[in-house]
Order: sequence, then structure tokens, then C-alpha cells
Amino acid sequence: MTWDVLSIIGTIAFAVSGAFIAMEEEYDILGVYILGIVTAFGGGAIRNLLIGVPVSALWEQGLFFQIALLSITATFLFPNSILRQWKRWGNFSDAIGLAAFAIQGALYATSMGHPLSAVIVAAVLTGSGGGIVRDLLARRKPTVLKDEIYALWAILAGLIVGLQIASSPVELYVLFGLLVACRMLSYMYKWKLPIRSIRQPNM
Amino acid sequence: MTWDVLSIIGTIAFAVSGAFIAMEEEYDILGVYILGIVTAFGGGAIRNLLIGVPVSALWEQGLFFQIALLSITATFLFPNSILRQWKRWGNFSDAIGLAAFAIQGALYATSMGHPLSAVIVAAVLTGSGGGIVRDLLARRKPTVLKDEIYALWAILAGLIVGLQIASSPVELYVLFGLLVACRMLSYMYKWKLPIRSIRQPNM
Amino acid sequence: MTWDVLSIIGTIAFAVSGAFIAMEEEYDILGVYILGIVTAFGGGAIRNLLIGVPVSALWEQGLFFQIALLSITATFLFPNSILRQWKRWGNFSDAIGLAAFAIQGALYATSMGHPLSAVIVAAVLTGSGGGIVRDLLARRKPTVLKDEIYALWAILAGLIVGLQIASSPVELYVLFGLLVACRMLSYMYKWKLPIRSIRQPNM
Repeated sequence: MTWDVLSIIGTIAFAVSGAFIAMEEEYDILGVYILGIVTAFGGGAIRNLLIGVPVSALWEQGLFFQIALLSITATFLFPNSILRQWKRWGNFSDAIGLAAFAIQGALYATSMGHPLSAVIVAAVLTGSGGGIVRDLLARRKPTVLKDEIYALWAILAGLIVGLQIASSPVELYVLFGLLVACRMLSYMYKWKLPIRSIRQPNM
Repeated sequence: MTWDVLSIIGTIAFAVSGAFIAMEEEYDILGVYILGIVTAFGGGAIRNLLIGVPVSALWEQGLFFQIALLSITATFLFPNSILRQWKRWGNFSDAIGLAAFAIQGALYATSMGHPLSAVIVAAVLTGSGGGIVRDLLARRKPTVLKDEIYALWAILAGLIVGLQIASSPVELYVLFGLLVACRMLSYMYKWKLPIRSIRQPNM
Repeated sequence: MTWDVLSIIGTIAFAVSGAFIAMEEEYDILGVYILGIVTAFGGGAIRNLLIGVPVSALWEQGLFFQIALLSITATFLFPNSILRQWKRWGNFSDAIGLAAFAIQGALYATSMGHPLSAVIVAAVLTGSGGGIVRDLLARRKPTVLKDEIYALWAILAGLIVGLQIASSPVELYVLFGLLVACRMLSYMYKWKLPIRSIRQPNM
């Protein structure tokens, strides 16, 4: 049940974030639907691949397509007053997708009895997969590799789920809310991590 | 039978379209073969993933490799008079691949009893997968996201196959021919779809 | 046994090469770990997909994650005197990953009784998959498509394994060493293959 709710939330979130980026890049109406759909299902396909569910299982969820198509339509019809702040809304929907799929990846790896290191990697790759597909197709630098704090929240999801600090549905929803909030705070206040450059000054 | 013919046509078409783009980008002879092979089998791999056939089933088709290698060799040896029009030929082979794999995706989703929305998404993702792999590797904007009419023809394939307007082999081949013709007309006459931009004038 | 050794070598090599490129691009410390992990496991995931092992089998190898994380940490802490030559070291680790995974792909296709053409394609795609994932994410031109001699060594691996010139563990390790040496020589002495351009002089 929690699993299905997270799937629906993640799918909607990535569909909306793909549609936002397509509008930002001035794609035509079909381009907005395509990038929205590819982001939503690219994220789901990568998640399924990584957690061992057949990718073709996606097609059994006719409901998901209708939800994704509706979400994209809604994004396309948003009033201008909201669209003027698309950067924040685009990041918000991306943060929701990251949190939902990172928790799913961590839950799956934990339920298979994998060690903590695998749980953390599963959380990071599952959570960032949808955004990576979207950014590659829109020819942007993947958000997960930007000098913002992004993957750290997925690592946190892996740690908290892997150490079974959160396991009941309520705890998982609280974790989900916390991760979204942390990601948005780190985006809005531009938190950074240290850099080690290997470019020499005289190069 | 129709299925195998469409597979062979799609594989040849994507191999040729990858080879054309590699020559356009001035890759060396091995680069032409690599991009041709990766496009042909990237398209096939994505189709297999999406329709639930193991990707490794590709290797059982030794015939396909020989066909793809021959197609790339033929492209590499084309007389200059044809190569001077490579843009049209590249788009032509891409249109063939799009139509062949979109019909396959739609047929598969229909045969599994999925709803119409899933059939349409399957047609679009299966048809455009090969071109997306090719464009990503050649670092171009994916054709499916350009402001040309491209995905619309895959959607049409999904609708016509999903509503069982075409189901016999003859009808499917006619549909295939129509889709290729529509895509080429929309490319040559630069048909467009409406855009909604969210960039503000004063930004 | 040889198989496992090659897996470990390939995973370490791609982890290190991803970390080098991330440091070169001035990513923060987490970006270095992310690109290292995504390269190591993207390469492994593509290999698993292509040779028919479930991608989720990756998680069973907790040891691999710890090895990859350690390798990235070591790369991050390398003394400056080595980092000043990162280009050579980055290419060296990439060459090791190419050789290890190309041999695995060829061995797999041979063991399944596939024809020589399929063995060669399997060697090329399996060997170059990790580098392609890394270069796409770092928004670089894929090494396999550059005008350097790269894929030729994977083709050679396919030929030698496919024709069973090398089949015992010792022969495979010798082949592995030879391939790494050939790739490094072709990189350092800038060996090239012929080009056929289709751009017209007056374009």
C-alpha cells in the first residue's frame, strides 16, 4: 500500500518535472507530453531494472499512464502566476520524485537482506534515475552531479531505511516529507559540499 | 512473420541512420560501424526491455548482426551523389525505424490486453527509443523532442493498432507505409505543432 | 573464478575512471562518489542486461560496493604528484575496464554458442557500456566514438575469444594484459583510423 502510494507520487512528480523542463526549453505541446512521459516512465523503468521487476510490468498500470497524462495536462494549463515560478516548482516536483523512489529502492534492497552499502547505493540510483533520464534528454547537466546537495538526501533515505529507523507506513511518510523539505531547503539556500579540484592553477 | 519482417526493417533502418549521422559528424570508419551498431541494437534493446523480451535474446539473431553490418558497409560505400543528400536519407531511414518499432510496440501492448493509453505510450517509447540512443551518443537534441512532427505518427500507430483498425499483415504494412510517408512529409514541409513558452519576455 | 576476477577488476577500473573525470570537472566530493558509482554500476548493469543476468543481481554483491567505494576514496586521496597526470591515469583505468568487460561479453556469447559476428558485437557493447554511461553523464563525447583507436581492441577480444585462440584462465589474463597495453599505446601515440567525410567543401 505504502509502496503503491510512493509509486503514484513518484510517477506524478517526474511527469510534472519533465513537463516543466520541456516548457522551459520551449518544446511544442507534444514535446511537453513526451518529455513528461519519458521522465515518468524512464524513472520507473530504471527503478524496475534496478530492483528486479520486469520493465514491461509498467504497461499493466494503465491507471499510471492516465495519471501521468493528466498531470502533464494540468502542468501545461497552470496559470501564469504559478508558471512564473517554474524553477521552484520544477525543483519541488523533482524533490518529490527523488524522495519517493529513493525510499522504494532502499525498502527493496532491505527486504532482500542486502548489506547497508547496497541499500544506500540502491537508494541513490533509484532516486536519481528519473532525473538523470530527464536531464540527459533535455541535454542538461544531471541534477545529481551539480554542486548542489541532492544525492545526500537519498543516502540519508538509504541509511534510515537500511538501519530500520523508519519502517512503519507512518514513519516512511514522515521520512518522505523530511527528505522533500531537506532537498528544497538545500536548493533554496544553496547549501554546498567541499570540492577537490585536480586542475592545476598553471594549466 | 509480419513481426520478423518489421524487426529486420527496423534494425536495418536504425543501423543506416546511425551510420549517416556518424559520417556527418566525421567519425572514422570504426566510429561509423559503432554508431550504426549501437543505434540498431540500442533501439532493439530498448524495444525488448519495454516489451518484456530478455535483451540478451538479441544475440540469438546472428543474421541480424550480419544484416546490420552489411547495411552500414553499404551506407559507407554509397556513391557521392546520394551522400550529398544525406540529410534526407538519414531522416528517411529514421522514419522507417520509427514506424517499424512503433507498430511492434503497439502490437505487443495490444496482444497483452493493455488499455489504449498504454498502447499509445508503448508505441511512442518503442518507436523513438532507437533514435534517442543514437542522438544521445552523437550528442544531438533527440529528434523526438525537436519542434518537428515526429511522435504524433507513433501516437497514430498506437491508436490505429490499439483500436484494431489495422490488424492483418496487409493492413499493418499499409499502416507502416503511411507512417513513413507522413513522417517524411512533415519533415520536408516543416509541419509544426503549437508551443506554450513559460519564459517571460523580461527574463 | 576468472569471471569473478574480471568483474572485480572491471568494477574497480570504472569506479576509478568515473572519479577521475568527476574531479577533472570540479564536482564536489559527493559528485565524485556518485559518478564513480554510476560508472561502475552502469557498466555492470549494461553488461548484465546484454548478457542476460538480472540487473538486480548487482545488489547481491555487497563486497563490490565496498570495493568501489574504497577505490573512489583512494582516488580522491591520491597525492598531487599522481593527480597531475590524471589524464593518463583516467585513460589507464578506462582501458582496464574496457578489456575486462569486453572479454566477459565475448566469453558469455561464445558459451551460448552464438556466431562470431554476435561474439564481436557483444565484446564491443559490453566493453564500452561503462564508458558510455560515464561520458553521457559527464556530458562528454563517448570515448568509443572519438577518433582514437578504442573499439578495435574490443573487436580483437571478440575475435580471439570467439575463435577460441584464448580460453584457459592464463590465456585470458594474457589477452587482458595485451588489450590494456594496446589501448594505452594507441592513446599515447595517437594512432588513428581513416575517415570518410560526407560534408561537402562548399557547405
